[in-house]
Amino acid sequence: MAFADLNKDELAEVKAQLEEAYAQSKAKSLALNMARGKPGANQLDLSMPMLSVLTSAEDCFAEDGTDCRNYGVLEGLPEARRLMAAMLDDEPENVIVGGNSSLTMMFDTVSWFWSFGSLGSKPWREYDAVKWICLVPGYDRHFAITQHFGFEMIPVALGADGPDMDEVERIVAEDASVKGIWCVPKYSNPSGTTYSDEVVRRLAAMPCAADDFRIIWDNAYTVHHLFDDVADQDQLLDIGVACREAGNPNRYVKFGSTSKVTLPGAGIAAMAASPDNIADLKSHLTICSISADKLNQLRHVKFLRDANGIAEHMKKHAVILRPKFELVQRKLEEGLADVGGCSWSKPRGGYFVSFDAPEGTAKRIVSLAKEAGVTMTGAGATWPHKDDPYDSNIRIAPTLPPLEELDAALDIFVCCVKLAYAEKLTGK
Amino acid sequence: MAFADLNKDELAEVKAQLEEAYAQSKAKSLALNMARGKPGANQLDLSMPMLSVLTSAEDCFAEDGTDCRNYGVLEGLPEARRLMAAMLDDEPENVIVGGNSSLTMMFDTVSWFWSFGSLGSKPWREYDAVKWICLVPGYDRHFAITQHFGFEMIPVALGADGPDMDEVERIVAEDASVKGIWCVPKYSNPSGTTYSDEVVRRLAAMPCAADDFRIIWDNAYTVHHLFDDVADQDQLLDIGVACREAGNPNRYVKFGSTSKVTLPGAGIAAMAASPDNIADLKSHLTICSISADKLNQLRHVKFLRDANGIAEHMKKHAVILRPKFELVQRKLEEGLADVGGCSWSKPRGGYFVSFDAPEGTAKRIVSLAKEAGVTMTGAGATWPHKDDPYDSNIRIAPTLPPLEELDAALDIFVCCVKLAYAEKLTGK
Repeated sequence: MAFADLNKDELAEVKAQLEEAYAQSKAKSLALNMARGKPGANQLDLSMPMLSVLTSAEDCFAEDGTDCRNYGVLEGLPEARRLMAAMLDDEPENVIVGGNSSLTMMFDTVSWFWSFGSLGSKPWREYDAVKWICLVPGYDRHFAITQHFGFEMIPVALGADGPDMDEVERIVAEDASVKGIWCVPKYSNPSGTTYSDEVVRRLAAMPCAADDFRIIWDNAYTVHHLFDDVADQDQLLDIGVACREAGNPNRYVKFGSTSKVTLPGAGIAAMAASPDNIADLKSHLTICSISADKLNQLRHVKFLRDANGIAEHMKKHAVILRPKFELVQRKLEEGLADVGGCSWSKPRGGYFVSFDAPEGTAKRIVSLAKEAGVTMTGAGATWPHKDDPYDSNIRIAPTLPPLEELDAALDIFVCCVKLAYAEKLTGK
Repeated sequence: MAFADLNKDELAEVKAQLEEAYAQSKAKSLALNMARGKPGANQLDLSMPMLSVLTSAEDCFAEDGTDCRNYGVLEGLPEARRLMAAMLDDEPENVIVGGNSSLTMMFDTVSWFWSFGSLGSKPWREYDAVKWICLVPGYDRHFAITQHFGFEMIPVALGADGPDMDEVERIVAEDASVKGIWCVPKYSNPSGTTYSDEVVRRLAAMPCAADDFRIIWDNAYTVHHLFDDVADQDQLLDIGVACREAGNPNRYVKFGSTSKVTLPGAGIAAMAASPDNIADLKSHLTICSISADKLNQLRHVKFLRDANGIAEHMKKHAVILRPKFELVQRKLEEGLADVGGCSWSKPRGGYFVSFDAPEGTAKRIVSLAKEAGVTMTGAGATWPHKDDPYDSNIRIAPTLPPLEELDAALDIFVCCVKLAYAEKLTGK
């Protein structure tokens, strides 16, 4: 029966039982982690052959004869640009292949717009205030970048089809100091949402008071399906096509990486944008870099080959990840469906499940879990300034722990959710 | 006989002979390159074993048990910080190991000081003008960074012992908008100069009008000796020690990399500074990065091991480079000593020879060489804005071409120098 329908005595009894169960969990002194979107060790093992594809000098030459062991090739090897273009749904000539981190490329892009402007616009640092749309729940490291530059972050709800576009359109139409929006458009972090075609078209076409409004399109999970059948995979309209069709070809900058395809920290990142934006961004890149690590680019090309190679490799990840995501759904369903007050996402890809606890309980749940040996992403992390006004959203990251640890961690999590909810309903 | 001592007829005859020789060189349609400080292919071969030190999952664990294939460890692996501390003459805890480029780390550091200030100081972007001391001849990519941020670059002569310290002290004492100085303190680019202990101490101790004056200590060539005997190697006083002794512990930020130790573009870069500066810089780094490529750090540690391993490896480079630098000296000596009007550096390490042609001839020489198939670094590149007011300095980069090509290139270069000088003296 739903907790909200219990009378006072029944609730008190339920709470007492939960406290007992919680105490037993705590006594086990576990150390479990559902905090960060890290691949598990067996996923990393999948890419070990990549470390052996370059061993001799002959292996180190690019298709155009470039000795990849030496300086040069700022925008990345032709074959690496082709590979990443396949991931980014773009043409190789619009792609810059960077170092090991799309986060770094996004930081640099925002930093350069802020420092120098975009395509001749006034540098954003010269505004009294710069505002930025932050979809919630969203990715904490995105929000940290805009916070670092002192932008005022405007939270807008991310719904089942993507951002609340009425709200987004209203905000960007009226205020030229609104300069951008963070988007994880496919299998978003944390809710697993993929934007509908209509949302993508509205983002591309909406009238913006700022000529230099920019969509930071962090397509981090574009190939990260949980299911092999195309019918069970989300599809995303290309923002580049939509922006060109809408007559706003310079509005977007796309990012992606192989961090969760091959190896986090030892992958390759890339960006794609209109020729004008790429030329503009390269005018800064050429000052701070001679080239990214071309040997690592070459490793990736030799290992992943092309879009088909990536898709085949991702199926191996899915074999490992699918049971973990299924376990999350089963444990939450079994443990919380009857209790009520909670909801959670059922993603078909990506790295997270977004969990909405009863209002005002998220911090308590995370704290209870921590004390019982289960580390969760901090409550509030999915909101700008780590401040969830509803104290409700919790990001579940099920990928790192082995299945049996995840099982134990989810039991404790469910217990903590129920206990915090019972505390709330009983006035603690 | 020196050209300057020839009479008009003699000069005309010499010039005619040189034009004939030049025409013959040109007719050979060579394509030779002494432009950039790139290692030769046989130097790159020295590091090929490094590509095979990580092949299995077991190879990928750091000494503290970190799985280097996954996210994390912002400041670099402990063993990588130790390795780079040895290169940077510092303690591992003061070191951040970055990606593949010290240039990127320097750009970021300047960018962050400019954007956010340093240790609580006013962000440099808020000044009407920021000024920067650029030692000449110097490194074009340094100057490009300060130009990119719009700094006014003040050229100061680099002499045999380092910067003209009287001039540097005068400039920094009187103007709080002078925020820094680029230094390549050992085997400098391009003159091969190593700063004397006295110069290092004066840089560390000089009174600066700006509290946040910063020495960017790009120790790119610290282990790049041409000779094995320590008596034939330059020694550099540690700027960190000097700054601490002078009571200015936060004045310097050191940089270095393995780009010319192992593989350019696939090396590892690092920085070292005071604990306060490192904490300050990490407050920005943590926003834009999760970690650098730890697998490449681990490759370097396994391959180079420690300071001794680096020194032994650099001896192999020296075996290849020494004959090239000796050839430069011999060709210039044989071809130009009697001619007069020219001077050049005789470095004991690094990657360049700095050549001073008769005033007003450097552009002409580089242009003549180019037409005859020899690409040199652009005349003026060693000055801010690529503008050498004396039109005299040319950077010779002898490392990339094989010895026989270098031989041919130097013959043509010497011919071009003499021809340009003869043209100057004859008024054409």
